[in-house]
Amino acid sequence: MNSYDFCVPTDIRFGKDKIECLSTEIGKYGKKVLLVYGGGSIKKTGLYDKVYEVLDGFEIVELPGIEPNPKLSSVKEGAGLCKEHNIDVVLAVGGGSTIDASKHIAAAAFYDGDPWDLVLDRSLVKKALPIFTVLTICATGSEMNPGAVISNEETKEKLEINHPLLYPTLSVCDPTYLYTLPPKQTAAGCADIVSHIFEQYFQPNDGAFLTDRFSEAALKTCFKYGLVAMKEPDNYEARSNLMWTSSIALNHLLTFGKGGAWSVHPIEHELSAFYDITHGVGLAILTPAWMRYVLNSETEKRFATYAREVWGVNSGNDRDAALEGIERTEKFFKELGLPGTLTEIGIDDSDFTLMAREAVRTSGLSSRAYVKLNEKDVENIYRACL
Amino acid sequence: MNSYDFCVPTDIRFGKDKIECLSTEIGKYGKKVLLVYGGGSIKKTGLYDKVYEVLDGFEIVELPGIEPNPKLSSVKEGAGLCKEHNIDVVLAVGGGSTIDASKHIAAAAFYDGDPWDLVLDRSLVKKALPIFTVLTICATGSEMNPGAVISNEETKEKLEINHPLLYPTLSVCDPTYLYTLPPKQTAAGCADIVSHIFEQYFQPNDGAFLTDRFSEAALKTCFKYGLVAMKEPDNYEARSNLMWTSSIALNHLLTFGKGGAWSVHPIEHELSAFYDITHGVGLAILTPAWMRYVLNSETEKRFATYAREVWGVNSGNDRDAALEGIERTEKFFKELGLPGTLTEIGIDDSDFTLMAREAVRTSGLSSRAYVKLNEKDVENIYRACL
Repeated sequence: MNSYDFCVPTDIRFGKDKIECLSTEIGKYGKKVLLVYGGGSIKKTGLYDKVYEVLDGFEIVELPGIEPNPKLSSVKEGAGLCKEHNIDVVLAVGGGSTIDASKHIAAAAFYDGDPWDLVLDRSLVKKALPIFTVLTICATGSEMNPGAVISNEETKEKLEINHPLLYPTLSVCDPTYLYTLPPKQTAAGCADIVSHIFEQYFQPNDGAFLTDRFSEAALKTCFKYGLVAMKEPDNYEARSNLMWTSSIALNHLLTFGKGGAWSVHPIEHELSAFYDITHGVGLAILTPAWMRYVLNSETEKRFATYAREVWGVNSGNDRDAALEGIERTEKFFKELGLPGTLTEIGIDDSDFTLMAREAVRTSGLSSRAYVKLNEKDVENIYRACL
Repeated sequence: MNSYDFCVPTDIRFGKDKIECLSTEIGKYGKKVLLVYGGGSIKKTGLYDKVYEVLDGFEIVELPGIEPNPKLSSVKEGAGLCKEHNIDVVLAVGGGSTIDASKHIAAAAFYDGDPWDLVLDRSLVKKALPIFTVLTICATGSEMNPGAVISNEETKEKLEINHPLLYPTLSVCDPTYLYTLPPKQTAAGCADIVSHIFEQYFQPNDGAFLTDRFSEAALKTCFKYGLVAMKEPDNYEARSNLMWTSSIALNHLLTFGKGGAWSVHPIEHELSAFYDITHGVGLAILTPAWMRYVLNSETEKRFATYAREVWGVNSGNDRDAALEGIERTEKFFKELGLPGTLTEIGIDDSDFTLMAREAVRTSGLSSRAYVKLNEKDVENIYRACL
């Protein structure tokens, strides 16, 4: 079990109608709020009106239109609004993209140079506005962690800013807000959560027993309730368990005492960058291929443990159990209605070499991943997804 | 799944030699430290000297001699020292008792009346000194929660003070500090951790699926490593997993989305109060008896789930599975070397009626427990332990 520092100060308000607390809680910091949101679905669902109702008496400045991959230009605009209106609190109402943009804005509000500097050098983050979130999509876990991924349109870079000051102060997690999610977003979000857990679970066995059992618990929850949420969008038990699991999956609990670089995320990252596909869709296609590729005499024991503990596979032989676990995983993604191959989403092999190079160059794939992968390996994995 | 508020701001520094961080971290708050500890075992192990080495240059005032059940008089003495020396930080080096006393002291340092007032009315807690802890016994979880149990010698009351300001700012959890624990303390601590998990796990099934699976993961960890730690006191993997599980077992994670009153703790509370036995020993004796007593056609499903998920019991019949799970639990406590009956520790039935009355009067046993228990029920449970 590796040494580990763990501190997650975010105040989670979980349950129906928890949004009512915002008036009191935001009020502790001031009356001027920057309201950050995305494409406007919150207007259709009534959540936008609800926010105004709860924050009656507050001065609200709006930053709408945050992109699915939030752009630096939006961050600049938001930081400008914070300075111009002397904003006290940034309130993100939306999913991971809206929250990520809000985090960067909260830090950029106290920085005079180009906000991109903060991404390149986190030591420049000295202060941040309090960040409040109202979650409408569960997937990224951004509501309970200090990270944010921002795209710089000019340099074509997509990088993470990560700083303890960027933990949201308070996050409202109301499972009923997920009832109106389109099935595609429910499915892709679920694949994202599952992948976050896998990335931390498939690491060298280092004796972090509790953490590994927690990961299995979180995976079981996704597999059980992912399908329920698809069939019954307004099933509270399903939505609430998935919502809490998505926060848990990326708030460092599942990597406590462990370590290592992630595998499938950097491989998917290039797919999204080159073809602008949905992140969760890319993960669902790549994950079973990656699993089969890294399955060997050394890793089969862990894959077999996964199969037995999470899927209840009975096979006594590790390799057979491992393979059955991988098949079950693949079947789950299919049952969510997600595509199973790159071909299905119109991607051929023309960029595989370039993408593989980039994936290895910009990540720990070849140095610190569960099974170290070079460019040729990554290309092979892409190819196995055709 | 019930609505739930969750916020655990404590900074956990987990691993070997993490104590080195104290100089920097405490230094953020000032230079005057109240060092609180117990009977002096930290002098034998060298930890006392280590604290002075790390805090070289700090002004340290000592409050030694904190009792296993910390007394109000110690709290008064500590609060007096804080005021007299203008203390900046309270540093607890020890187990739950030392940390509990330190929490109460940290709040009492800012209160002019009798510190007991703060226990009786938590709204009087307006401010508290930062609390730092160095954990030497894992059992109570006090290093990562906002509660403290204090005994008032004059009124003969033993009550909890609980306030968000009492979360430790930072806790050093170094598993190697557990290597020198006497076997009896390792065993009793383990029984305490297990009981904390049971109290939260055995509650009405409310759809908090992830939370229940987390509890099973935590129980598996205790059952696996409790016995290892008894046989190999310096087994790092065992000590580290138990140490982290003890924090997790009582930092609210395992009650997320659940609720209800505890059962075995209030029944044990009277045993400790009347006979001054070790809390964990009382819990180990009572738990199997309580389980058998509340096992019925309504609860057998949950006990069967426990048996199957935690112990891998195969029986298809719920009642049989449940009974086997209870037997395994009892066997585990015995293998830890803990006594199995009250008779073994010299307790007869002379106070059962009185203790049962007190247990019901001072708790939620008859109103909100998993299976509601009246005085006669509690007396029957005591009797089953003879």
